[in-house]
Amino acid sequence: MARIVMKFGGTSVANVARIKAVAERVRAEVEAGNEVAVVVSAMAGVTNEFEGYVRETARLFDLREYDVVVSAGEQVTSGLTAIALQAQGVTARSWLGWQVPIRTDDAHGSARIEDIDGSEIVRRMGEGQVAVFAGFQGVDPQGRVTTLGRGGSDTSAVAIAAAVGADRCDIYTDVDGIYTTDPRVVTRAQKLAMISFEEMLELASQGAKVLQTRAVEMAMRHGVRVQVRSSFEAPTTETTPGTLVVDEDEIVEQQIVSGIAYSRDEAKITLTGVPDRPGVAAGIFGPLTEEHINVDMIVQNVSPSGEATDLTFTVRKGDFDRAVKLLQDRREQLGYQELRPDNNVCKISVIGVGMRSHAGVAQTMFKALSERGINIQVISTSEIKISVLVAEEYTELALRSLHTAYGLDAET
Amino acid sequence: MARIVMKFGGTSVANVARIKAVAERVRAEVEAGNEVAVVVSAMAGVTNEFEGYVRETARLFDLREYDVVVSAGEQVTSGLTAIALQAQGVTARSWLGWQVPIRTDDAHGSARIEDIDGSEIVRRMGEGQVAVFAGFQGVDPQGRVTTLGRGGSDTSAVAIAAAVGADRCDIYTDVDGIYTTDPRVVTRAQKLAMISFEEMLELASQGAKVLQTRAVEMAMRHGVRVQVRSSFEAPTTETTPGTLVVDEDEIVEQQIVSGIAYSRDEAKITLTGVPDRPGVAAGIFGPLTEEHINVDMIVQNVSPSGEATDLTFTVRKGDFDRAVKLLQDRREQLGYQELRPDNNVCKISVIGVGMRSHAGVAQTMFKALSERGINIQVISTSEIKISVLVAEEYTELALRSLHTAYGLDAET
Repeated sequence: MARIVMKFGGTSVANVARIKAVAERVRAEVEAGNEVAVVVSAMAGVTNEFEGYVRETARLFDLREYDVVVSAGEQVTSGLTAIALQAQGVTARSWLGWQVPIRTDDAHGSARIEDIDGSEIVRRMGEGQVAVFAGFQGVDPQGRVTTLGRGGSDTSAVAIAAAVGADRCDIYTDVDGIYTTDPRVVTRAQKLAMISFEEMLELASQGAKVLQTRAVEMAMRHGVRVQVRSSFEAPTTETTPGTLVVDEDEIVEQQIVSGIAYSRDEAKITLTGVPDRPGVAAGIFGPLTEEHINVDMIVQNVSPSGEATDLTFTVRKGDFDRAVKLLQDRREQLGYQELRPDNNVCKISVIGVGMRSHAGVAQTMFKALSERGINIQVISTSEIKISVLVAEEYTELALRSLHTAYGLDAET
Repeated sequence: MARIVMKFGGTSVANVARIKAVAERVRAEVEAGNEVAVVVSAMAGVTNEFEGYVRETARLFDLREYDVVVSAGEQVTSGLTAIALQAQGVTARSWLGWQVPIRTDDAHGSARIEDIDGSEIVRRMGEGQVAVFAGFQGVDPQGRVTTLGRGGSDTSAVAIAAAVGADRCDIYTDVDGIYTTDPRVVTRAQKLAMISFEEMLELASQGAKVLQTRAVEMAMRHGVRVQVRSSFEAPTTETTPGTLVVDEDEIVEQQIVSGIAYSRDEAKITLTGVPDRPGVAAGIFGPLTEEHINVDMIVQNVSPSGEATDLTFTVRKGDFDRAVKLLQDRREQLGYQELRPDNNVCKISVIGVGMRSHAGVAQTMFKALSERGINIQVISTSEIKISVLVAEEYTELALRSLHTAYGLDAET
């Protein structure tokens, strides 16, 4: 017997037929002798619909009221899922954020969970009642509805798993696990049986949009074993059909590189001849921050003369035009020579906790790309990740070359 | 300055444009110096959509979960209306049933309001904040969501008006008031400036579906002045543009007959030769009640011989076939001679509190119908109402004749 939290995303509860399928899957876990809590998202498209109403009503709006509106979708699916379970003979009831309560701070629109008292839920789970939680929602200290930000139901699920001391938090989604890289690009990509929290965090923030980053952070902090599974495969209660996201200590045979992520949503800006003196970086990035333009990779070349240097950084494609204009408007003040814009780039990241203890990981990357004649424009590294910027047209070639070079290809 | 509750139904908040129009109307009342609370229904069609999901999920369902699902529609509009008000410079916030709280019993699906503490709302209204209530919903003693039954937002509005001691409860709807009869049938029907609670109750239960019956009962009990107004006419803050539903003492110049209602949703069943002995009526109506078939008019002729009698009663058209079959199956047991079914009937009711003190009201009715050659099949009376059953094809003729006979025709 295990205590399990099962989370179902919007496509898994997109209509009544799928909600019934979800109920069957839950019933299978119950019949296998497990204690089960369920977390559901809104039906696919509903949150967008509600958000559309809000934006149509006012350009600027009170986020407290926004939360009231957009949280209604999860309320609907929690009730329907409870009904579907009851119809299959499973004792169940729905729980809204304020009923649990799932206490959050008052950062409406992207609130953080502060506290969940799981004792009542655990007691009921022990009696065989399945708790069906409306994901995404909580309640602030003033008793007003909050939401956890888009994708927040993942965070709800992990937080509830921590609160009830679950053995596992299963995230059912429209993919069947985490892959070494995008299987649509690299046909020989392999599904990972296990991945560490740290690697998952890097993958998630690199564009592998399977799990909300905050959910992974919370799972890491509370040591919640997360399993990413497909909700479109036949129900099964086997232990590891998807990918298990766990503490790296649990992974016995650690690969040096676990996966390769990429993001086309990058644009590069180079400023040449930037005066090499204190305060210049602040002068450049300050205005960007004020305009809520997120800067990702930053590379500054060593200045040989000690007087001027070249500065390169990346922003998201959607922010590109604004960033360029902002810097062009400040050319005199910043004193750079030339602004070279380039939104024809792709960021490729090699990720693996094994890097910490293995030398030569970066060298393998540079060699593989060089052999294919792919020029590396920018390099940025962290403890468990190496990212490079290459021209966008090389994306597929680079991914496939690196996948082979790191020995990740599935046997054919 | 007055304290006003403004209630807007589903067609009045059917989309964002209409919600903005609602906000304009509310702002006009605020700018006129009034303290305002608003009660909103779900967008037109949304409650039906949610109810459809529930029925698709299970044939029999937990009404507690049904309430969770169907109450979500009002949550959406309460948030949107608050945002629309804020966008027009009006201080506003939404209130969900559990936040107020609007305490109800636990009769899920059609709960009754037991208590609303209006003090916090009154305090905020005094500070100029408009309270926007999600109608239709409450919370039961166990902290679970309840709903008040279809049309329940009217009841929410009246209960809130009573709780905050409002001077008036304005029900905005898609008609501009209560008429002497259906203006689609009788072109000379007139809008009533005032009508008493008692008359409104009879009208509402007779098929004039402007106000939920329970809302009228509650208004009568708490002495809440209700005004039925159109939400599709230009905003105005005049005092009586619609119809005011008030205590009959307030109506100075009381008409003998205020209005004429009709219902085509009637079917007649006559049993001839029913043994005239105690317990026979119970034997007939008991099985109908068990099958949830509501019996409306009942007429039993005096039995001349003292041995057998004829019994006629009406049911709703939707229950007709089941009722006929039920009685035919029990023919031997009930011992009647013949069952005569007839679903080609219409009930016409003349309503007026003035009847109490005026003789001859029924006579006017019988005479007017007889002059047109309309045969009266069944008569049933209450203190302020006379109802007759006529063949359905006479509906329009009967309505027009009676409207003229009671002097209700508008001047041309």
